[in-house]
Amino acid sequence: MSKYVENITKQLKQASVLLQRLTTSKKNEALRAMAKAIVENKEYILAENRKDLKKAKKDNLTQSFIDRLTLNAKRIKVMSDSLRAVAKLPDPVGKIILTKVRPNKMKVQKVRVPLGVVLIIYEARPNVTSDCIGLLFKTSNIGILRGGSKAMATNIAIGDTLNSSLIKVGINFSPFFVIKKPDYSITDELFKQDKNIDLVIPRGGEALIRKVTESSKIPVIKHYKGVCHIYVDKYADLSKALKICINAKVQRPSVCNAAETILVNKKCAAKFLPQLKEKLEEKNVEIRVGHKGLKIIKNVKKAKESDWKTEYLDLIVSIKVVDNLDQAVAHINKYGSHHTDCIVTEDKKAADKFLKEVDSACCFHNLSTRFSDGYQFGLGAEIGISTDKLHARGPMGLEELTTYKWLGKGSGQIRK
Amino acid sequence: MSKYVENITKQLKQASVLLQRLTTSKKNEALRAMAKAIVENKEYILAENRKDLKKAKKDNLTQSFIDRLTLNAKRIKVMSDSLRAVAKLPDPVGKIILTKVRPNKMKVQKVRVPLGVVLIIYEARPNVTSDCIGLLFKTSNIGILRGGSKAMATNIAIGDTLNSSLIKVGINFSPFFVIKKPDYSITDELFKQDKNIDLVIPRGGEALIRKVTESSKIPVIKHYKGVCHIYVDKYADLSKALKICINAKVQRPSVCNAAETILVNKKCAAKFLPQLKEKLEEKNVEIRVGHKGLKIIKNVKKAKESDWKTEYLDLIVSIKVVDNLDQAVAHINKYGSHHTDCIVTEDKKAADKFLKEVDSACCFHNLSTRFSDGYQFGLGAEIGISTDKLHARGPMGLEELTTYKWLGKGSGQIRK
Repeated sequence: MSKYVENITKQLKQASVLLQRLTTSKKNEALRAMAKAIVENKEYILAENRKDLKKAKKDNLTQSFIDRLTLNAKRIKVMSDSLRAVAKLPDPVGKIILTKVRPNKMKVQKVRVPLGVVLIIYEARPNVTSDCIGLLFKTSNIGILRGGSKAMATNIAIGDTLNSSLIKVGINFSPFFVIKKPDYSITDELFKQDKNIDLVIPRGGEALIRKVTESSKIPVIKHYKGVCHIYVDKYADLSKALKICINAKVQRPSVCNAAETILVNKKCAAKFLPQLKEKLEEKNVEIRVGHKGLKIIKNVKKAKESDWKTEYLDLIVSIKVVDNLDQAVAHINKYGSHHTDCIVTEDKKAADKFLKEVDSACCFHNLSTRFSDGYQFGLGAEIGISTDKLHARGPMGLEELTTYKWLGKGSGQIRK
Repeated sequence: MSKYVENITKQLKQASVLLQRLTTSKKNEALRAMAKAIVENKEYILAENRKDLKKAKKDNLTQSFIDRLTLNAKRIKVMSDSLRAVAKLPDPVGKIILTKVRPNKMKVQKVRVPLGVVLIIYEARPNVTSDCIGLLFKTSNIGILRGGSKAMATNIAIGDTLNSSLIKVGINFSPFFVIKKPDYSITDELFKQDKNIDLVIPRGGEALIRKVTESSKIPVIKHYKGVCHIYVDKYADLSKALKICINAKVQRPSVCNAAETILVNKKCAAKFLPQLKEKLEEKNVEIRVGHKGLKIIKNVKKAKESDWKTEYLDLIVSIKVVDNLDQAVAHINKYGSHHTDCIVTEDKKAADKFLKEVDSACCFHNLSTRFSDGYQFGLGAEIGISTDKLHARGPMGLEELTTYKWLGKGSGQIRK
């Protein structure tokens, strides 16, 4: 093990014990101090950000890359506000999930506890640094943060600012570690620390996530992609369906909960498809249609097999006519990414069947897929969206950054 | 992919859809039919078991191996009773965990659903076949069962018996697959089916579990070992402590929740250690003591560093004198296996600190570690004990064989 990683490993063991001992009110006080410090140290953070930006421009990185990397006074204010918002959320740690008193008077309780140490791997988006530090700290988890190397100066500045603010409220240890070296060998070493790190959460594109999953010996919570569907049932209210389809596709096409495929029941296709085409074209959406749909609407592209699996993240939509609900469910379970899928129908039985049989993290009835989001669900915060089935599924808030332990309380009971 | 695995993969996709459609009462009817069939087909199962036993004896396998492999009328009755017991347990599938109505009237619900497809890898213990089939079926999970190759004829007989009984209650598909070929290449292929299999649970010794973890691309829930501790605090009721230590060590030393190490606070060591030594020796327990303890009790072995990490599963115990509660917690978190650890004390503050700071699945106060068990906790059934932190921790019952999905119910809401 390199000295660098060994040093982090040693420190985080001690820090973990001390972090568990902080009360909720102390943690909230610290979060407010962090929020204050990040605004007070704005000039320093922006100066470091300019260094990163200068290099990025020299390296001819894309405009959208540079946009995500750029900080300004407004973005720093948002980071600060987020930390303050996390301070206001209820602390899941210590929450009793279950209590049983057994016939022998033994009291058994299931109680929420931190996961321990969480490693976050992310791209060059500096706000993720402070957002994740806030969420991990609130849930008493030690954080190791490895952001994109192109944002390293900015991330170090944010980390140092937040660390210094903790000292002001009497917290003399570091509950998080911002990786300060760009070498990939450090990440590779961290991925082997399954005795010291409990969870890896990669945040970014599919390529990053696949790479982390393949390299890590530590459990990974993944969010591969969002190939989200809307199924317009034969008993759909077509005006509702139209509104939902358009919102889900165009309101923010670049995000994972935007819709990529619209499935239309053959009973309403002749009526619905022309309306849908008109509205989509008004919004400059490129339409790719399966062979049955092509008999109803003309002058659109033909969808290929690969279209059904594609997360466009763009103003493109694929459309397929299906014979019935079963075929819609089968299509979604086969081609989808188990993220978010919606049925539009006025038939409660059809809706119940869809919600039951679609194997996705979020199954919606008469709702835009764009609502699949921790804030919209009322979780107050979001560390990501999981398309895994184990541990956490769908939008992950503070509770998903915890595990549980069983407490057994007795008065000397022994097993007969 | 081999034809064999391809065939299973195809069938389980279809079976999964059909299995989700069975009601709880239908599943319970089927479980009772399975319980009946296993007793009715006793002669057939025992005849197949004799074939396995004949081979095992020819291969000179150990007596304890042969004992675990052996079925008889009594053991078959126990298997049948277990299936009937599972029929009586509440079905976690469909349980609503959380309901929120958001300001826009969107209703969000978190509801329990099956994991999907679970692969169980286990040793040559035929009862595990029917136990796991029962638990997986009750939770609407498709099961793939790969038992030890030395028990293959018996396992196939059990699987065929249970399958035939399903047809009698009108279930014309197979919700489980008993692997009928001993080739390891099949297991290796299954481990790569991360698109079709959701979870692997290995049940057996540490070597088996490590092998599965290293080979599998599918998430694994592990139970490595149980190095369980009892810490006798300075405010312990020593007669309680003595009873708990003896029970935890000797009542069934071969199981994972038996105690392996006893930590004694230095304030009560002079009084407690001689009593403990006497009682342990009465029960023929070999004692291995750290250097501080050796000053108090004589004629016992000296513990080596390796003793603190060892799961003896035998009538051997290691004993260490510690300066205080912090040292006890640090020892447990360093050397333990995060399974089950107990403090004996009359001091509530010490107990609370121990329960909070020990990083184990089960943290006990004044209780024998032997209570760490799904049945004792009132879960009604147990598929295993997890020493992982993600998804499930500690004793795993029916609920731990499920995940959740989010349902969103609306009336046409779109995102602004």
